[in-house]
Amino acid sequence: MSIVNLILGRRLANREYVERKINAFEGVPAMGLDGLGSSAYGPEAALTILIPLGAAGLAHIGTVMLPILVLLAILYVSYRQTIRAYPSNGGSYTVSKENLGTYPSLLAAAALMIDYVLNVAVGISAGVGALISALPALHAYILPLCLSVLVLVTIVNLRGTSDAGRAWALPTYLFVASFMTILAIGVCKAAMAGGQPEPVVHPPELPAATEAVSIWLLLRSFAAGCTAMTGVEAVSNGVSTFKEPVVKRAHHTLGTICAILGILLAGIAYLTHAYGIGAMDQTQQGYQSVLSQLAGAVVGRGIFYYVAIGSVLCILCLSANTSFVDFPRVCRLVAQDDFLPRPFAVVGRRLVFSVGIVFLCVASGILLIVFGGITDRLIPLFAVGAFLTFTMSQLGMVAHWRRELGTASNARERHQHRASLAINLIGTLITGTSLAIIIIAKFIEGAWITIVVIPCVILLLFAIKRYYRELDAQLREGGPLDLRRMEPPVVLVVTEGWNRLTDRALNFALRLSPDVAAVHLTALAGPDVDENRQELRRQWSKDVERPAQEAGLRPPQLVLLQAPYRRIQAPLLQLIQATERGHPNRLIAMLIPEVIKEHWWQYLLHTHRARRLRSALLRYGGSHVIVINIPWYVEEPRLEAGLDEAEKREPLGTQQEDR
Amino acid sequence: MSIVNLILGRRLANREYVERKINAFEGVPAMGLDGLGSSAYGPEAALTILIPLGAAGLAHIGTVMLPILVLLAILYVSYRQTIRAYPSNGGSYTVSKENLGTYPSLLAAAALMIDYVLNVAVGISAGVGALISALPALHAYILPLCLSVLVLVTIVNLRGTSDAGRAWALPTYLFVASFMTILAIGVCKAAMAGGQPEPVVHPPELPAATEAVSIWLLLRSFAAGCTAMTGVEAVSNGVSTFKEPVVKRAHHTLGTICAILGILLAGIAYLTHAYGIGAMDQTQQGYQSVLSQLAGAVVGRGIFYYVAIGSVLCILCLSANTSFVDFPRVCRLVAQDDFLPRPFAVVGRRLVFSVGIVFLCVASGILLIVFGGITDRLIPLFAVGAFLTFTMSQLGMVAHWRRELGTASNARERHQHRASLAINLIGTLITGTSLAIIIIAKFIEGAWITIVVIPCVILLLFAIKRYYRELDAQLREGGPLDLRRMEPPVVLVVTEGWNRLTDRALNFALRLSPDVAAVHLTALAGPDVDENRQELRRQWSKDVERPAQEAGLRPPQLVLLQAPYRRIQAPLLQLIQATERGHPNRLIAMLIPEVIKEHWWQYLLHTHRARRLRSALLRYGGSHVIVINIPWYVEEPRLEAGLDEAEKREPLGTQQEDR
Repeated sequence: MSIVNLILGRRLANREYVERKINAFEGVPAMGLDGLGSSAYGPEAALTILIPLGAAGLAHIGTVMLPILVLLAILYVSYRQTIRAYPSNGGSYTVSKENLGTYPSLLAAAALMIDYVLNVAVGISAGVGALISALPALHAYILPLCLSVLVLVTIVNLRGTSDAGRAWALPTYLFVASFMTILAIGVCKAAMAGGQPEPVVHPPELPAATEAVSIWLLLRSFAAGCTAMTGVEAVSNGVSTFKEPVVKRAHHTLGTICAILGILLAGIAYLTHAYGIGAMDQTQQGYQSVLSQLAGAVVGRGIFYYVAIGSVLCILCLSANTSFVDFPRVCRLVAQDDFLPRPFAVVGRRLVFSVGIVFLCVASGILLIVFGGITDRLIPLFAVGAFLTFTMSQLGMVAHWRRELGTASNARERHQHRASLAINLIGTLITGTSLAIIIIAKFIEGAWITIVVIPCVILLLFAIKRYYRELDAQLREGGPLDLRRMEPPVVLVVTEGWNRLTDRALNFALRLSPDVAAVHLTALAGPDVDENRQELRRQWSKDVERPAQEAGLRPPQLVLLQAPYRRIQAPLLQLIQATERGHPNRLIAMLIPEVIKEHWWQYLLHTHRARRLRSALLRYGGSHVIVINIPWYVEEPRLEAGLDEAEKREPLGTQQEDR
Repeated sequence: MSIVNLILGRRLANREYVERKINAFEGVPAMGLDGLGSSAYGPEAALTILIPLGAAGLAHIGTVMLPILVLLAILYVSYRQTIRAYPSNGGSYTVSKENLGTYPSLLAAAALMIDYVLNVAVGISAGVGALISALPALHAYILPLCLSVLVLVTIVNLRGTSDAGRAWALPTYLFVASFMTILAIGVCKAAMAGGQPEPVVHPPELPAATEAVSIWLLLRSFAAGCTAMTGVEAVSNGVSTFKEPVVKRAHHTLGTICAILGILLAGIAYLTHAYGIGAMDQTQQGYQSVLSQLAGAVVGRGIFYYVAIGSVLCILCLSANTSFVDFPRVCRLVAQDDFLPRPFAVVGRRLVFSVGIVFLCVASGILLIVFGGITDRLIPLFAVGAFLTFTMSQLGMVAHWRRELGTASNARERHQHRASLAINLIGTLITGTSLAIIIIAKFIEGAWITIVVIPCVILLLFAIKRYYRELDAQLREGGPLDLRRMEPPVVLVVTEGWNRLTDRALNFALRLSPDVAAVHLTALAGPDVDENRQELRRQWSKDVERPAQEAGLRPPQLVLLQAPYRRIQAPLLQLIQATERGHPNRLIAMLIPEVIKEHWWQYLLHTHRARRLRSALLRYGGSHVIVINIPWYVEEPRLEAGLDEAEKREPLGTQQEDR
């Protein structure tokens, strides 16, 4: 127990919920790593598409990045509005559900869930991939490294979102500080040199052009660059995790993330052009990432370079954290609507949704293992999910403002709503268009997989919903307690000879009903084991029947049953069947005395017949059967041993509400 | 279920026990493979020690093998006597227990059990090793091959001893037939050539002598050759598996095994000398086993050679089977005396002791995995166990005959007993001496490990015995049923809102006692989930309290309890504690309504609170608490689904003995 305490921290009480909430300082590392990490690969992805243009391609990076920055600004403004409108949770699932209906909300949920799982696998493998290219000696350990990072992020998140926010604060702010400094120095140098600065370390020569510029190429470059935007929706899905005032803190966090991301994207675009830095082919020897070339060109290969590049590695590895914060919260909302298994909605040990965290770890771990830690092929699938949720969220907000417009009370409100509507409408159009471009541009590369998987997930969600609906329909109470069937049950006591277990069980049985029979199974141990049945009967008559008669009770019968196949379940199930036929409409109570195992090694020393019998009776007995466990202890247990450390300090008085 | 049926065969009834017993034809493959396989490595082990003598060493093989053959004859005669004296089971555990007492019997049991586990690992790895030297392409698959053979032998033995006897009959009798033929041809050729036959394929030259002959060398050679004797005790441990007349069939089997083994050993010793065949260094290139050289020299490298060598491989791989027949039977006897966990004494699906078979598989599988399938280093440990059990068995029989001698009624009987005593006494002296030689000769090579491990095993056996003794002492009934404590229990019903589960549970609870309280836990799902407690109370009063009052019953209370740590166990354990304080000496019945999971996927969709609560209450509740499970089914189950195919055909009437 203390090892679990050490790794996951002590169990937290419900009343500590408020203290566990986070502010913007912790919010940026907790939810922003995905968004900030995107700056490391978004511009590079756009530049990679431009490689065939050679040096001329750099002239177009502005053309590609400008719409991306505009899109970012629109997303920022519209998510600000969403958070204000849905301060408890403004994720695209909620927004679609409230405004568009069930089907669109499940589309958003499926897209989000797939996106988050992919983000973990792709984020970690990209981070480890970058680490490997810095330290090629680690090449043999790609998968173990990926899984180690995954387990680390999982454990930190199982400890709670605020722990994760604090744990990753250092690498996050180190990354932000170092690249802001590099960009500032670079821009100053470029401005002083009239736009043609002299690099400290020269970036590699750009290859010769092999293609002329075309609209299609620019669109593909834009689609690739859009990956820089993944993670922007994160804050809206995790609003509920912020301290009061929730909206203000969420706005701060969202603003900080978008501002940093925007500055980084703009700065990188400007400096790559100024220094003549292009993307390189990753499969070639001597590959360097765009950020590495940029840092080298601006500040040279000193200590500062290595600190900056080290922080990029951390950010990439940890970008998975955003998923770990948001995925369980999305799953919880979906599970509360019965579209996911209900355990997803249960708050765990540290006041986070542990089932969702563990599920995310397992699902992305399987992806990592299947792809051997190299998940390049999954990247195309990735942006589709993100832009689908952007679009659904914007569309939902359009519907939201239209409805608000109808109920607005004065002209000023109407005016505000109209402005908001316009912003979300523009957002819908732009993100929708981007989505279309991404799907077309990346269809063959893998976007089709998402288009196949999403409907499957939605069908699964509906199947789960149907199960719960049917279950609840059956369980729902039709009317008041029906006390007519009050005949006492037929009681069967399972015995292994006459001992104190049987004594306790019979004692309880005789109180329950006048119809008690003890069932002893013979030949359980095998065909060549002799049992003294006469002796058992004699003892029964002396030690059980006579005292019962003397106490004025109907004496319990002793039934000897053969177990021809050495299984205890079958003869008893058959006896139940026979008893049901003899006494229709009466309950049958099966009393199972059981020696309780208090130590692990006791499990090796007993035959577990009681446990197996209980499972079989509960599973196949039918609704006439009630199973009663009579425990028997070698040492009387201490009740406190079943409590958690923290629970022991919680006396019952504080828990009991009223009686 | 049908897959298990396919692999293991249908479940057998107790009454089929007699049909499952075996005769000598099946007995030789089932129990003799260890003994017969010894002929493949015993003489080779003796010759290996003689390598330093060069060609001159061959002259001494007779000196070494003759005492081994004498020992074999003595063992044969004395085990014949043992089987007759102990027709139910004549293994050294039984014989020592009956005649020497508990400590010697546990020494024999520990030695036997260790010996059998080692035999599996060593036998399989030796067989696979021989296969690898024939087909070097398989070298990369040593461990998978070893484990496959292990699993195959395990499954066949789980199907029953007679299945194993039938399955291995072909390779066994093929081996016997082919080597008998080779020896016969070889002896004829040698006789015709006046003791100097011309080999068809010349065996490799013998190396030059590097040492002179010494008593110590011959003793070591004898000790090594003694491994040829392992497996001779097998029949005595498995007597109970034979058909009636048991003694005659066991004698036949033992006689067949010893005769074949004796002929093989004598023939091999004679022909190696005649053809000038010596052992070769296994670690050198071009290594050939003695049997391979012999077969080549006598019949050349034709088809017959390959058939014969193939049968040797099979015999070696399958020599593990002897352990699988005997180990579970020895464990069963020890478990019946409470020195091993009782599950070892339970007859399994196919009327064999499945727990022992599976344990043997796991234990030897661990050995194989730890040693990577190369268990050469374990061979020295091996003969120690075998000769220790021989000695214990002989010593036990000496004590047996001495006692019989005291009670003999006439002179003829006394005479017979005296002769038997003499044989066993000689046997004790020779096997004891051999054991001493083996221990001294192989002490450093590994025999010391056995000497360390055996006492540990004996201590473990005693610890197990102590546990059962204490348990039985507590459980033993002191007197007749005590019916004084007849106050009705306090009943607590665990509810999750007011639904049909609660309805059923309350119905049963109200019949059990007038003191019923329903406990509803709030805040179980987390801190931010709102529950309508007023609504629950209102419904309770209308649907439960009023009907109970109308039926003239004391209405059950509704207790709302907080679960501050979202665990259902702790508040209920604390409530039990408080109730115990309020009502000392009264039982507390906890009613747990539970939705029964009928499909595997339902386990993913439910929170398992009922199951967890039941475990916690049984584990920590204490002897005042009784746990009552109220099952609730989505679909009413069919009782028959809990029965095995065979059990369905067994109506209850045939099982019920009397009522």
